[in-house]
Amino acid sequence: MTDSGNGSELAQKAIRQMRMAKEAARQIAVASTEQKNEALKRMAALILENRAFLAVQNKKDLEAGRENGLSSSLLDRLELTDARIDAMADGLRQVADLPDPVGRRYDRQTRPNGLVVEKERIPLGVIGIIYESRPNVTADAAGLCFKSGNAVVLRGGSEAIHSNAAIAELLQNAVEQTGLSKEIVQFINTTDREAVNVMLKQDALIDVIIPRGGKGLIRHVAENSTIPVIKHEDGICHTYVDETADLQMAETISLNAKVQRPSVCNAMETLLAHASIAEAFLPSVCEKMAAAGVELRGCERSRQIVSGMKPASEEDWRTEYHDLILSIRVVDSLEEAVEHIETYGSHHSDAIVTRDEESARRFTQGVDSSSVFVNASTRFADGYEYGLGAEIGISTQKLHARGPMGLEELTIYKFIALGDGHIRE
Amino acid sequence: MTDSGNGSELAQKAIRQMRMAKEAARQIAVASTEQKNEALKRMAALILENRAFLAVQNKKDLEAGRENGLSSSLLDRLELTDARIDAMADGLRQVADLPDPVGRRYDRQTRPNGLVVEKERIPLGVIGIIYESRPNVTADAAGLCFKSGNAVVLRGGSEAIHSNAAIAELLQNAVEQTGLSKEIVQFINTTDREAVNVMLKQDALIDVIIPRGGKGLIRHVAENSTIPVIKHEDGICHTYVDETADLQMAETISLNAKVQRPSVCNAMETLLAHASIAEAFLPSVCEKMAAAGVELRGCERSRQIVSGMKPASEEDWRTEYHDLILSIRVVDSLEEAVEHIETYGSHHSDAIVTRDEESARRFTQGVDSSSVFVNASTRFADGYEYGLGAEIGISTQKLHARGPMGLEELTIYKFIALGDGHIRE
Repeated sequence: MTDSGNGSELAQKAIRQMRMAKEAARQIAVASTEQKNEALKRMAALILENRAFLAVQNKKDLEAGRENGLSSSLLDRLELTDARIDAMADGLRQVADLPDPVGRRYDRQTRPNGLVVEKERIPLGVIGIIYESRPNVTADAAGLCFKSGNAVVLRGGSEAIHSNAAIAELLQNAVEQTGLSKEIVQFINTTDREAVNVMLKQDALIDVIIPRGGKGLIRHVAENSTIPVIKHEDGICHTYVDETADLQMAETISLNAKVQRPSVCNAMETLLAHASIAEAFLPSVCEKMAAAGVELRGCERSRQIVSGMKPASEEDWRTEYHDLILSIRVVDSLEEAVEHIETYGSHHSDAIVTRDEESARRFTQGVDSSSVFVNASTRFADGYEYGLGAEIGISTQKLHARGPMGLEELTIYKFIALGDGHIRE
Repeated sequence: MTDSGNGSELAQKAIRQMRMAKEAARQIAVASTEQKNEALKRMAALILENRAFLAVQNKKDLEAGRENGLSSSLLDRLELTDARIDAMADGLRQVADLPDPVGRRYDRQTRPNGLVVEKERIPLGVIGIIYESRPNVTADAAGLCFKSGNAVVLRGGSEAIHSNAAIAELLQNAVEQTGLSKEIVQFINTTDREAVNVMLKQDALIDVIIPRGGKGLIRHVAENSTIPVIKHEDGICHTYVDETADLQMAETISLNAKVQRPSVCNAMETLLAHASIAEAFLPSVCEKMAAAGVELRGCERSRQIVSGMKPASEEDWRTEYHDLILSIRVVDSLEEAVEHIETYGSHHSDAIVTRDEESARRFTQGVDSSSVFVNASTRFADGYEYGLGAEIGISTQKLHARGPMGLEELTIYKFIALGDGHIRE
């Protein structure tokens, strides 16, 4: 419950910013939907109008990145191309078009004593976003927090510091031009890692921390934060092809889940095939996977059916490849498939292909994942695909929100009770 | 993500228990409502049948407590009277009668591409309860976790170790007699505090920690847990009497909020009175408070109206007395009342007494508390009063659940998506 924690100048400055965010949170919490939407559209406009400014600032990051020997894929993530600047602006306008979750009253009931109790959706308060490399997160995350009535404290990766600061400045200007306090959006403008550690202890000022980045970042945040954290971790996703599956459908779904975008968290990493269809199913799907550039790693039984596969190790079952690699295992039953998923999976997104309703029921009940699919690709685990409009991430934890998180998941409720002089006996 | 953390024998034993809980969580998650209710009724029966056994074990704790010089109020909390044993059994039977939140499907939608997406309520998994002194928490908390399909790891206070262990043993026997694994209910049978610290690092085995006890315990848990925590902290609750209030109603509500049960978290600690009604309101309510044994501490202006009050210090506004003490402040406006509550309150439960709907609206919007009351006593902030049937506690945090938490709040959802060969373009 302390908001001190560190006496350095840097720490003091960061804490001042978080205090301002907490103060400003009260203003954005009660701002009208119209005012919030106007500010979001203004953010989009300023980003487009200041394309040249953004390019100059982004160039500084790219040059520093080249000097520091960043990999080409990291440099690619860092770059604010014209298309990406357009996408940021589009994203903000889309958020403006989404329904406002704040203020909705629901679960109204009149108690036997006449007390009327209901819930009202309210913002979480101040959301801390700690993220890496991609500068577009600055606009995307701030836009979602803003629309859901929250103040936000942004702490981006050091590689993108100039780009992030530039975007944050434009967002703040837009907020101010709409007549709201620019303190609603705070950007921690330092590459010093101390700032992250100071931030993680401010449970009196920040209500929730959302880390977005690699395993190391998320682990560091979870281990050091005294603030509640919403984690977005690995996706070790499976597709299980049941004995009654339409094998043509299973092939199409498996290929889509693996190949369409292998670098994302909802791509498939392991294909499980029931022994009774393995010989009919695996040769064709493996041929097509290989043709699409997928490296195959199989269990012993699958390697007896399809020659030329590398053996899959215990480690393979636990690995999120983020790449064109697939592990394959033959199982004797749906229960064995569920057991494999529960043992090695990450409770993210898993699918069954089956014609049998009872199999579908057993699978969706037995697999404890945030998204369970029947006859569909795991790639659908996504806020847009679920109609949330946008997503701040895909929660892999069980508290508060699971799976794709949209605006509603950036809010909570309070109870409002209306009496007429009610007292407790 | 590690479940080691400590190599001592005690740590290894505790970790084995948590592993068994995680394994058993899969069984209770899919148990039928009937089977769970049967086990709950069996728990109640065994507690009543083993009254003598409980009394013997409880006596060991009471004797040790007296030897260790526990205060009479702590000894009182510790005692398992006949009435309290009855109440534990009644509580378990009531939980059996509550609707089962698990398995409910909702928010069903058919996406434009034909994918059918819905949510299903599922248990959180393994819930860790870390609690102090009162042995009835063993039965109450375990019953709620069990009905909501969760395994539970109980770690009670050292003063009640024999009573807690005895109750836990009866609960496990009941579970086993119903044909379920007794590993669903785990009790950490040691007074060594190391066990708590080991428990707090098992994020691979426990899904959420609910601490129930004093400030020190809750702070320790929040600072050391790598597992998400649901906090139940202070209630610094206010009643604000608006300028349009029915003063008779305001007096009745204020007295009820302060006097009816001053030791609980939803009792009022500070009374705020609008300046325009202060002279008409304060003398009478203060007289009645004093007659009820309440010590009054006032701001300067209230002391000019009512003589004989001690002065309230800055510290008073921040204090949860848990006792027959009340601080009183005169404010010039509803906004000043809101400002006071937001500055000094604990966001638990606060009330306005007013005849004006617009004042009620401004107050309920401006006060960021888990329960906001209009013309009712703050004492209604309670799971039973809100129709939740029972409560595991009153959350004072913003993530997952706010205010009184019932069975539903011990569950979360997963997304289930039904396709027909759907792939992502």
